[in-house]
Amino acid sequence: MEEQTQTATETADEGHVATSKKTIIVFSGDLDKMMAAFIIANGAAAMGDEVTMFFTFWGLNALRRPEKVQVKKPKSTLQAMFGRMMPRGPNRLGLSKMNFAGMGAPLMKKVMRDNNVMSIDELIATAKEQEIKLVACTMSMDVMGLREEELIDGLEFAGVGSYLAEADEANVNLFI
Amino acid sequence: MEEQTQTATETADEGHVATSKKTIIVFSGDLDKMMAAFIIANGAAAMGDEVTMFFTFWGLNALRRPEKVQVKKPKSTLQAMFGRMMPRGPNRLGLSKMNFAGMGAPLMKKVMRDNNVMSIDELIATAKEQEIKLVACTMSMDVMGLREEELIDGLEFAGVGSYLAEADEANVNLFI
Amino acid sequence: MEEQTQTATETADEGHVATSKKTIIVFSGDLDKMMAAFIIANGAAAMGDEVTMFFTFWGLNALRRPEKVQVKKPKSTLQAMFGRMMPRGPNRLGLSKMNFAGMGAPLMKKVMRDNNVMSIDELIATAKEQEIKLVACTMSMDVMGLREEELIDGLEFAGVGSYLAEADEANVNLFI
Repeated sequence: MEEQTQTATETADEGHVATSKKTIIVFSGDLDKMMAAFIIANGAAAMGDEVTMFFTFWGLNALRRPEKVQVKKPKSTLQAMFGRMMPRGPNRLGLSKMNFAGMGAPLMKKVMRDNNVMSIDELIATAKEQEIKLVACTMSMDVMGLREEELIDGLEFAGVGSYLAEADEANVNLFI
Repeated sequence: MEEQTQTATETADEGHVATSKKTIIVFSGDLDKMMAAFIIANGAAAMGDEVTMFFTFWGLNALRRPEKVQVKKPKSTLQAMFGRMMPRGPNRLGLSKMNFAGMGAPLMKKVMRDNNVMSIDELIATAKEQEIKLVACTMSMDVMGLREEELIDGLEFAGVGSYLAEADEANVNLFI
Repeated sequence: MEEQTQTATETADEGHVATSKKTIIVFSGDLDKMMAAFIIANGAAAMGDEVTMFFTFWGLNALRRPEKVQVKKPKSTLQAMFGRMMPRGPNRLGLSKMNFAGMGAPLMKKVMRDNNVMSIDELIATAKEQEIKLVACTMSMDVMGLREEELIDGLEFAGVGSYLAEADEANVNLFI
């Protein structure tokens, strides 16, 4: 029987396929995991892949503007409390290990800078330049009371159905 | 050369393929990660996917019955200790962040209820209704001394070989 | 229209395809997650899969030699501090839950030994015997100041590009 096939996943004997797609769910709000997610995403985009990152739950904190934003639709007491307690933006995220009540993150940032690793701000800027699709999970936004105006520019807003449709087209799907 | 192919992963130009399959390893016993796992699983099942969730290590705690169960085969001292200290059922799980010694989970549940997000109990019930396969990892059960009679009804019991066979057939495989 | 295809991911009706490939990013340095990663990897290798594990960030600690190693290239103060504070080797890793300031890991090890589960040392030895490719992330090594001579034998050293090339060829890619 004759076998003729050409799929996005069969790259072994033909090198990297430029059209292959990657998705990453960014659930964790830890600086170290966030950096890993962006390093993988930027690497894939640099190799010509289409990449979509879905930010959900604590991961959304990386997309918050650093300043306090006056929101149009009022928040519930609990949502306002979550909003105050959760870190505003990537520079306030802690580490998943050796956080030492917040002391770990600046040390990790310094040692990364010393080694010419991109900062989280640069990683996010590069992701945007490379047209990585950054999607904020609308259900998580509703729960935590985060509004579009509190998040950085250039995001898309969608739910789990949109994620699944993209994951079906991708050949690498990670949950971080 | 003629190219003719039709695979589960090539869905870009033909929409969602109803027969595609998803697997999720649920390792974490955190309420927030558990909810994410069930939301993804239920979403995929609603779109017609076959979904298998493998509960291992702390993830097994979500499948425990809330009441204390008299087990047939006696547990070792350590297993009995693990059994007492680990949360019994999804309603006793904590959060991966902002847990505040257990205070975070009820607040998160309230804010989710306020926003009409399904509770973890409803998510599990929906998963069963949608015939998502819920598999308890037998090796983890042995280690932690959890017996079948301590877990909820409707589970399958299997090991890593079974997981791998299913993952091979799936186009999205997540570890949560 | 005639459909003829044979891909690594279409295994439903023909059993496990021996040539299929798996990749696992091992980011976490928790003993329990490390064991899960090796159990999955060893299971896949036993079924004939090609498996690559990429150790990055805290995951690198599992590959450290247990003894203090005199390094050739001097470390910065911060790198030396990270080196002293991070666990040296798999036997000093803690648990992701119920760690109890380090007390949890020995109890978990004992209960695993009681149930004839392989120790982390045995899992790593088996991985090597089965020719699982163990790759240390060079960027993480630079950041944390970990040198090749501080890590166990038999490793490869590579970056994110190498990971992505392998993931493109694999049908299961996990982030643990």
